[in-house]
Amino acid sequence: MQEIKGYLRRIELLGNAMGVLNWDLEVNVPPGGVKGRAEVLGYLSGEMYKLITAPEAGEYIAWLEQQNLTDPVHKGMLREMKKSYERLVKIPADRFVAFSRLTSEAQAVWAESRRRNDYEMFKPYLKQIMDFEKEFVGYLGYKQNKYDTLLDQYEPDMTTAVLDKVFGDLRDKLVELLTGLREQGKAPNNDFLKGHYPADKQKALNREVLKLMGFDFNRGRVDISAHPFTTSFFNGDVRITNRYDEEYFLSSFFSAMHEGGHALYEQDISDELYGTGLATGVSMGIHESQSRFYENMIGRSKGFWEYFFPTVVKEFPNLSGARPEDMYKAVNTVEPSLIRTEADELTYAMHIIIRYEMEKAFINDEITVDEAPEVWNEKYEKYLGIRPKDYSSGILQDTHWSGGMVGYFPSYALGNLYAAQFLNTMKKDMDVEELLREGNLEPIHQWLKDKVHKHGAVYTPSELVEMVTGEPLNPQYFVDYLAAKLRTVYNID
Amino acid sequence: MQEIKGYLRRIELLGNAMGVLNWDLEVNVPPGGVKGRAEVLGYLSGEMYKLITAPEAGEYIAWLEQQNLTDPVHKGMLREMKKSYERLVKIPADRFVAFSRLTSEAQAVWAESRRRNDYEMFKPYLKQIMDFEKEFVGYLGYKQNKYDTLLDQYEPDMTTAVLDKVFGDLRDKLVELLTGLREQGKAPNNDFLKGHYPADKQKALNREVLKLMGFDFNRGRVDISAHPFTTSFFNGDVRITNRYDEEYFLSSFFSAMHEGGHALYEQDISDELYGTGLATGVSMGIHESQSRFYENMIGRSKGFWEYFFPTVVKEFPNLSGARPEDMYKAVNTVEPSLIRTEADELTYAMHIIIRYEMEKAFINDEITVDEAPEVWNEKYEKYLGIRPKDYSSGILQDTHWSGGMVGYFPSYALGNLYAAQFLNTMKKDMDVEELLREGNLEPIHQWLKDKVHKHGAVYTPSELVEMVTGEPLNPQYFVDYLAAKLRTVYNID
Repeated sequence: MQEIKGYLRRIELLGNAMGVLNWDLEVNVPPGGVKGRAEVLGYLSGEMYKLITAPEAGEYIAWLEQQNLTDPVHKGMLREMKKSYERLVKIPADRFVAFSRLTSEAQAVWAESRRRNDYEMFKPYLKQIMDFEKEFVGYLGYKQNKYDTLLDQYEPDMTTAVLDKVFGDLRDKLVELLTGLREQGKAPNNDFLKGHYPADKQKALNREVLKLMGFDFNRGRVDISAHPFTTSFFNGDVRITNRYDEEYFLSSFFSAMHEGGHALYEQDISDELYGTGLATGVSMGIHESQSRFYENMIGRSKGFWEYFFPTVVKEFPNLSGARPEDMYKAVNTVEPSLIRTEADELTYAMHIIIRYEMEKAFINDEITVDEAPEVWNEKYEKYLGIRPKDYSSGILQDTHWSGGMVGYFPSYALGNLYAAQFLNTMKKDMDVEELLREGNLEPIHQWLKDKVHKHGAVYTPSELVEMVTGEPLNPQYFVDYLAAKLRTVYNID
Repeated sequence: MQEIKGYLRRIELLGNAMGVLNWDLEVNVPPGGVKGRAEVLGYLSGEMYKLITAPEAGEYIAWLEQQNLTDPVHKGMLREMKKSYERLVKIPADRFVAFSRLTSEAQAVWAESRRRNDYEMFKPYLKQIMDFEKEFVGYLGYKQNKYDTLLDQYEPDMTTAVLDKVFGDLRDKLVELLTGLREQGKAPNNDFLKGHYPADKQKALNREVLKLMGFDFNRGRVDISAHPFTTSFFNGDVRITNRYDEEYFLSSFFSAMHEGGHALYEQDISDELYGTGLATGVSMGIHESQSRFYENMIGRSKGFWEYFFPTVVKEFPNLSGARPEDMYKAVNTVEPSLIRTEADELTYAMHIIIRYEMEKAFINDEITVDEAPEVWNEKYEKYLGIRPKDYSSGILQDTHWSGGMVGYFPSYALGNLYAAQFLNTMKKDMDVEELLREGNLEPIHQWLKDKVHKHGAVYTPSELVEMVTGEPLNPQYFVDYLAAKLRTVYNID
């Protein structure tokens, strides 16, 4: 066991090194350093491949399988080790490298084709990427639906059968809620948010809210990058990035809370899990549940703004005429829009459902890259009542496909669902709204740490959700939470 | 040959990765991340050790030795490969690791003992470190003097026999020059420099001077760390750090020029040298010659200040009453002092000679750690006419011994000597002073690039000095350069 832990620790240390190199690439590398950095990362990826597929890994797995393991940590260790080992040994190394080269190139082509609004330019890359994904499914096998195999990479054990039901149901209910708001509700006013918000003051404000959340600046930092992200080298060094729009401070503010949620998860992972391969978030969906919890369930709650609004006014006196309630309502405005990353809490899920339906159709050969833009536009028209007028605000908007991350999107919506389900349970243990009004976020953080964060990847997402909430994934909590909030915001009943 | 270059490239890529992790450790790591980072670096050091001592390395060396190499690049490649291979295989791995652990620990103890002015605390570590160095000399062997083996790590082929003569001579001449200045000269006034210098303005000013020098910001950046340093991941990503004292801008200014000199060297290394192990500065002494050249021969020259002083006044209007000549004189004030890193151009060399004499005595068992502080103080009294009143400003001031870098100090003084010798040759090709007055530093940079920088480590320091200047190391150029300048500054004749 000690030998296996030593082996897993080497993988962690190499991963940590690659994490620093990737973070530095996003945050610091000067233009002339990009190509060289890619070469270093390519070299280390090769070393990682060698480590994970080393002959002794197969022996360790075989040995562990004979041990009749009872400790959940040991069981999780075997599960995760087996998964990454089998994935890598089943896919031929040269196809892996070819795919990695293709997606590196495709990222640049995608960025350029989006800039030019030129789908034809990106189309051959999209075709090749989807072909690769199908080829990989061929190597890895599948039970019910080919897409399950891709999904499983980001959300272990999640299946298309479950998602069809969950997302279908969610879609119908959200459309119904949206229609209700439009027909009976009164949209909030957010004109008072117009103003100039210096980046330095935004940084100071974001620091305040991160401290309030419990982010430990002794074990993390905040930097600037083109798109906000969180990266963790281990629980003692967890880094957030952000960007600052001086016309609209809420963009960086909610990014700080969102990334802060990811960061708390990583900072709270138990020290004991190092050397087991489990010192990481269990899945993208669970990770996203933590970021969406802090961004939305906290950051768009009434209690939070009652406590925090004076702090905002201190930095931005132009807001002094508004009340906390105005702010609460303004940040909960619902408006169907074309760009996922700018969507409100309600329509966000619709964007994800569209991506999910399209990915599934691609992998099961139900649509071609030629038909895809039209299918995309029709879905937007049908679910959100709006239609992209160009490729850049339509099918070309997201980076995931060019990056080869097919199967990733559902995590974003699952995150919302898990978060609402966790919140529902948390409310049985404490008066969350009252704690928010008092600005006392510590018990909330501690609850999440104990129930979710400290376990890292010991349990699967479904085991964890069941352990924490006593039932499997149930999207009704999210619908109820959202309906209750938006009805208040839109003055219905 | 292609296979060997592939192997050497892997060493470069791993070194590049370790460079980023080390830079990030100095510049970014939050307190909670230090221990974990040390573990990652320890792991990668182990991988580096494995790479360098791999069985194929021995085969490559044997093969290269049979090839009758004529290309200087191939010859340099063999020379450097053999050197690092033999060094690592001759020292038992466990002793290497033990030494590395000791110096990590000793660094912290040294910092604490300096803070407390407590030599007794550091003494046992100093003893162990010196014992290790002697043990290593035992493994590696030596010809004339044990200290030669340590010296050779930082300044290849340099010997104690040469340095005894060079430093002995230099010491006598500098003492004579110093006595002359004191007895006949008039010290410049630098009271006008008092003022408040905001860090942001210092940064802007340093950026100006780095641009003027030719530092390429597309292939490098400037950050903040506790002590200024330069690190290069490859010629497309060369990074400088600095620190800012708001009472005294010249500290960060000269650091920028100093580190800028190191950085130009690294940015100018020829692309073709990657994959040969030679894409690096040839020695610490030659590297230091470039930083000292820019810091002193340029940054403390009359022509430079005539051109650049108005730029300084633009950032710091409090200096508008002074003339360029006042500045030139002020930055050339000579004053014996206890702290090496704050020393002027003349007395700097004396600090180095003292370290050199002490290191040589340690390694040859001529002094013990018990006697060392007294020996140190006596030398300061004898050479500089001042005596440290505590350990912190005496024997405990430098980090090199605690870091296990015995043999490094002489490079600093050699850098000054090489720089003056290069300047002497450069002056035969162009009117350096006139170019400085015009603010046209491009021809100077180009000269250094062609003669020194682009060659990386292809030639040994002595080969390079001979190639560039037509003669071996000759300290007279430095003495003459300094005497000529200081006589003007001190109004003698």
